[in-house]
Amino acid sequence: MRVAVVGAGLIGGSVGLAARVRLGAEVRAFDPDPSARAAAAAAGAADTVCDTVAETLHGAEAVVVCAPLGVLGDALAAALGAAGPDCLVTDVGSVKRALVGAHEDPRYLGGHPLAGAEASGVGAARDDLFEDATWYLTPTPATRGTLLERAHRLITGLGAQPVAIDAEVHDRLMATVSHLPHVLANVLVGQAAGALGEGDSLPASGPSFRDTTRVAGANPALWPDIYLGNAEALLAALDEAVEALGRVRAQVAGGRRAELVAWQEEAAAQRRDLVEGGWLGGPVRELRVAVPNRPGVIAELALTLGRAGVNISDMALSPSPDARNGVVALWVNEAGAERARRLIGEQGHPVTEEAR
Amino acid sequence: MRVAVVGAGLIGGSVGLAARVRLGAEVRAFDPDPSARAAAAAAGAADTVCDTVAETLHGAEAVVVCAPLGVLGDALAAALGAAGPDCLVTDVGSVKRALVGAHEDPRYLGGHPLAGAEASGVGAARDDLFEDATWYLTPTPATRGTLLERAHRLITGLGAQPVAIDAEVHDRLMATVSHLPHVLANVLVGQAAGALGEGDSLPASGPSFRDTTRVAGANPALWPDIYLGNAEALLAALDEAVEALGRVRAQVAGGRRAELVAWQEEAAAQRRDLVEGGWLGGPVRELRVAVPNRPGVIAELALTLGRAGVNISDMALSPSPDARNGVVALWVNEAGAERARRLIGEQGHPVTEEAR
Repeated sequence: MRVAVVGAGLIGGSVGLAARVRLGAEVRAFDPDPSARAAAAAAGAADTVCDTVAETLHGAEAVVVCAPLGVLGDALAAALGAAGPDCLVTDVGSVKRALVGAHEDPRYLGGHPLAGAEASGVGAARDDLFEDATWYLTPTPATRGTLLERAHRLITGLGAQPVAIDAEVHDRLMATVSHLPHVLANVLVGQAAGALGEGDSLPASGPSFRDTTRVAGANPALWPDIYLGNAEALLAALDEAVEALGRVRAQVAGGRRAELVAWQEEAAAQRRDLVEGGWLGGPVRELRVAVPNRPGVIAELALTLGRAGVNISDMALSPSPDARNGVVALWVNEAGAERARRLIGEQGHPVTEEAR
Repeated sequence: MRVAVVGAGLIGGSVGLAARVRLGAEVRAFDPDPSARAAAAAAGAADTVCDTVAETLHGAEAVVVCAPLGVLGDALAAALGAAGPDCLVTDVGSVKRALVGAHEDPRYLGGHPLAGAEASGVGAARDDLFEDATWYLTPTPATRGTLLERAHRLITGLGAQPVAIDAEVHDRLMATVSHLPHVLANVLVGQAAGALGEGDSLPASGPSFRDTTRVAGANPALWPDIYLGNAEALLAALDEAVEALGRVRAQVAGGRRAELVAWQEEAAAQRRDLVEGGWLGGPVRELRVAVPNRPGVIAELALTLGRAGVNISDMALSPSPDARNGVVALWVNEAGAERARRLIGEQGHPVTEEAR
């Protein structure tokens, strides 16, 4: 397959590397920034790094446009202008509906890989970045079957799992599980900073605050465009959240304890369903282990489980204010949970199972 | 010191154990539940387990009331009724203003240890549960100096660090950094469950959702009473959150990108300040390491750092949907960060520093 990549950052570079290494594709790449082009060449992200979009797309069977969301519409238009009549044009933008609506071209098929982008730049590109990652595709009734098939072949060739989804559903989903949590994290740190402003010198807060605000202030160069790019779905999600907060407000103000108990229980059941439904990483059990928080303790624990073949799919350590003691929550798969409990107990650490 | 404990669960049992073991106190304990009394005796949480509050408080210099928030007011009143004229009466309730207002007795001094309560019951009690934990005390102008001094001696004797705070400030603080995050986590899982209800089968969501909803549905038997016990401060925090969401809404609806960029940058700075100010566990640096998510990898990493004397104060692993790859965020202290980067690099894992 002859693959073109427009935009040579972490994602574009990884597409190029994976296409070359795993798919055996011939890759051409372009980036408007000459230094990014040089870095892409140095990283081996393409067989040929080109100076223009037209040159990059010459003879391409598929082009993956990996520009930042703020300029993605223009980059897509340029790619569609330069692409041949049978060239698949796809992208990696994290918001889809507006793009799909603005580019009603049978060659365009929206895409969105759920792949880590913690580091940035083509220097951090890896040929295994997409391994087993979900890669959303947003076909429309106008999407040509041959191009959809080619997109599947390309994406599975990169190591990812294509999942077809309606662009509007995709955006509503992302508004709920990604964009709204980012907004709420920002709101929480803002309020906490305000509380701090009162001049109280305060000790370490609990894990609920740390967890809930982990993503606060994430990449300010990127997120405003995501909020704006998904404005309609995000506004709906915000309205729904404000409505829910209003209901809680009335229950708290009215002292309606039974309703609050029912709501808390419902949330526990919902989170359990989300976990078991695979949303949070497959069926797992949550073990909580009390540990002295000295170097090596978590290591011994994880190593013991690792040696016994129990994989830890998620982990959260809640230190005490001085970080000398703590509780580590371990999410382990169903099959290994009992073995894990026994092994942890044998190491002398009290272990309980989260019974929410 | 002769110490009485009313309520023999995890906290009360740990107070009893720590008072006996660390402080050399003579401890009497009571619980309204006969089976909890038997368990307290079996756990060694008291020298004498008594059948009445009066008997428990006989000759006590200090009583720590460890009843659940819903019945704490009544339990405090009973303890004050049975306590001698020079007996310190304190408690461990996580909401303080209403209790302090309702018990204007010079012998009563409100308390709130920030100690882990993931497990429950006296069987999980430990004599080191409070080691170096912050233990809030809420003295008033009416608080007798000798009793405050005795409370300090008791609490430091249990291993904790007493911190004086105004009851109202305490409750506002907890509303912001603990109660509101719990409410928002519930709201988020509710919305996600609603999205699921549309019949879409969806793959694993991102770490922002997992982190933000970690505390959703926490202990339904406990949390409604916390919400209601801190109603005034929680309502104010809810109103502030709704107001902030309204501002974001207007910025998103109006396409006001510059304001959103400024807000995102402000949140990044605020979270940095909270981290550096010690709220989130002292001055630390956040390293992000790309790892294959197989058993033992995190163990090797943690063990390597542990051997080099670098302590990991917090850790969050974000697996890919199939849990075969992931990024682990490690929070390490300032002093060890450079060493950690070097050691992780030597293990062959790409490492970047979170530059938010």
